[in-house]
Amino acid sequence: MKLQEALDLLKEIYEQRMPFDRLLGIKVVELSLEKVLVRIDMREELIGNFVREILHGGVISSMLDLTGGLVASVELLKHLEGQGTEEVGRRLVRMSTIDLRVDYLRAGKGAYFTATGAVLRHGSRVTVVRTEFCNDENVLIAAGTGTYLVG
Amino acid sequence: MKLQEALDLLKEIYEQRMPFDRLLGIKVVELSLEKVLVRIDMREELIGNFVREILHGGVISSMLDLTGGLVASVELLKHLEGQGTEEVGRRLVRMSTIDLRVDYLRAGKGAYFTATGAVLRHGSRVTVVRTEFCNDENVLIAAGTGTYLVG
Amino acid sequence: MKLQEALDLLKEIYEQRMPFDRLLGIKVVELSLEKVLVRIDMREELIGNFVREILHGGVISSMLDLTGGLVASVELLKHLEGQGTEEVGRRLVRMSTIDLRVDYLRAGKGAYFTATGAVLRHGSRVTVVRTEFCNDENVLIAAGTGTYLVG
Amino acid sequence: MKLQEALDLLKEIYEQRMPFDRLLGIKVVELSLEKVLVRIDMREELIGNFVREILHGGVISSMLDLTGGLVASVELLKHLEGQGTEEVGRRLVRMSTIDLRVDYLRAGKGAYFTATGAVLRHGSRVTVVRTEFCNDENVLIAAGTGTYLVG
Repeated sequence: MKLQEALDLLKEIYEQRMPFDRLLGIKVVELSLEKVLVRIDMREELIGNFVREILHGGVISSMLDLTGGLVASVELLKHLEGQGTEEVGRRLVRMSTIDLRVDYLRAGKGAYFTATGAVLRHGSRVTVVRTEFCNDENVLIAAGTGTYLVG
Repeated sequence: MKLQEALDLLKEIYEQRMPFDRLLGIKVVELSLEKVLVRIDMREELIGNFVREILHGGVISSMLDLTGGLVASVELLKHLEGQGTEEVGRRLVRMSTIDLRVDYLRAGKGAYFTATGAVLRHGSRVTVVRTEFCNDENVLIAAGTGTYLVG
Repeated sequence: MKLQEALDLLKEIYEQRMPFDRLLGIKVVELSLEKVLVRIDMREELIGNFVREILHGGVISSMLDLTGGLVASVELLKHLEGQGTEEVGRRLVRMSTIDLRVDYLRAGKGAYFTATGAVLRHGSRVTVVRTEFCNDENVLIAAGTGTYLVG
Repeated sequence: MKLQEALDLLKEIYEQRMPFDRLLGIKVVELSLEKVLVRIDMREELIGNFVREILHGGVISSMLDLTGGLVASVELLKHLEGQGTEEVGRRLVRMSTIDLRVDYLRAGKGAYFTATGAVLRHGSRVTVVRTEFCNDENVLIAAGTGTYLVG
C-alpha cells in the first residue's frame, strides 16, 4: 500500500466512518507526514456553558483524543510503509488510546477551532503524542498528552 | 436557597441547558449529597470504532469530565448552603475544569453506560474528583481524575 | 519459581538493589497477592518546603511510582506462575513506567507515610494502577495513577 | 524587591534551603525571565534499575515537579514586580503543586541531565507548566505537565 493511499484511507476513516466524529462535525484539513490539522466549527450544539457561550470541555477532549490518534496513526504508517493493505488496515483498526490528559487553559471562544499534535515518542507498542487546541485567533485553548497502544 | 432546590437546578442545567450534554443525550439518574450517577445509552452516533462497534473515546472523556464537574458542584453546594440563589448560581456558572486524566481500560461495549465520582479533596479554590465509567454489566470501562476550579 | 520466592525476590529488589529506593529509605512492609504497602519515615532530608516542614513533592511522586510498579509486578507474577526463575527475572527487569499522574491533595505532614495501590487493568502489554499516599493518621495526602509497560 | 534579587533568592531557596533538592544534588544553572534550566549529575545513588543502570523514575518526576515549580515562580515574580520582599516571599512559600503528569519516553542514560519548562497558562490562581527532561546528548528522556496553585 502506498503512503498517500493510506493517508487518504485514514482521512476517510476519521471524517466519514467514525459516527461520533461525524456527530461532532470534524474536518481533517491537513494530513501528511509533516502535519496533522483537524478543524471543528463552532455551532450551538457544541456549547457547554450556556451563560458564557463557550465550547463544552468534552468537545475539546474529544478533539485532542482523536487528533492524537491521527498523529499516532500517521507515525505508524511511516513504519508500515511497503506492507500490504490488509496488514495496514488491521493495525490501524487495532490502535487504541491508553490514556489522555487534557489541560483546559482558556475559555473556548471562537468561530472555529483547530487541533494539531506532535509525536513525543514512537515505540513498537506505545506511542506518546502532545496535542494543542487553538481558536480562530490562534490562541491556545487547551493542551493534551495522549498515550496510544499501537502494537 | 434550599439544598434540594439547588440540586434540582443543577440537574436541569446539566440535562437541559448545556447544548452538548443534550447532543450526547445524558441523563442525571441520581443527584444527592451521597451519590451522583449519570447515564448514557448506546446509540449508533456515539460509536468511534466502526469495525469493533465500541464507544468513541471522546464520549467517555466527555462523560467523565461532566460527571466530575457535577460531583464538584454538589460538594460546592454543601459549602454554600444558606447562601442566596444568585450567589449559588454565580458560583456554579463560574466553575470550570482545570485538567482531566482519562484511563481507557476496556472496550466500550454495552447497551448503556453509567458514570459516578467521588471527591478526593475539596478546597476553597480547587476540588479534585475521581470518576469511573462502567457498562451495563458494571464492568469498569474507564477511570478519570479531574481538577476543578471552584473559587 | 514459586510465588513466595518471587515475592521475596521482588521485595529484595525494591528495598536493597535499587540505589534510589535506598537513598529514599523505603520499606516494603507488606507484599502479597492481596496487598502491597510501602512505608517511608519522615526525616529532615525529605523536606521540600523548609518553612512549612512538609515532604517534598518528589518524594511523594517517587513513592507512588515505585508502589504502582510493585503492584503491577505482583500482578505480573500471578500471570507468570509456574515459569522459570530466569523468565520471571527477565520480565520484572524489563517492566517500566509509561506515565504517571500525581494529585497532591494535602500537605505532607506526619512522622511516617504509607503508599498502597490497586490494579485498574492488567493486560498482556500494559497495566494501569491507582495508588494512594497517606500519613500516620491515615489522612490521604496524595493519589496517583500509573501506566506500566509489562509486555 | 528588585527582580534580580528575587531571582537570586529563588535560586538559593531551590538549591540550598530545600533539603530534598540538596539530597538529589540539583543545580539551578539558568534562572531568568527567559529561561529556567536545572541540572542533575548522574551518580550511583540515583539509579533505579540496577541491571540497566538507568535513572530512577522518581528522580525524573522530582526534577520535573521542581523545575515546573521554578518556572511558575518566575512567572509569578514578573507579576509581583514592585511588591515588597515580605509579600514576594510569602507568595513563593505558599505556592504548591496541584498535580503532575510525567511521560517516561526513553531510558534515563547519561552523565548528566537537564530540565527546562515553559508556561502554558498563568492565572491569578493557577499556573500550568510543560516541562522537558533531556540527557547529555539532548535526547528527550521525559516530558511533564504540572498545575501549580499560585493564588
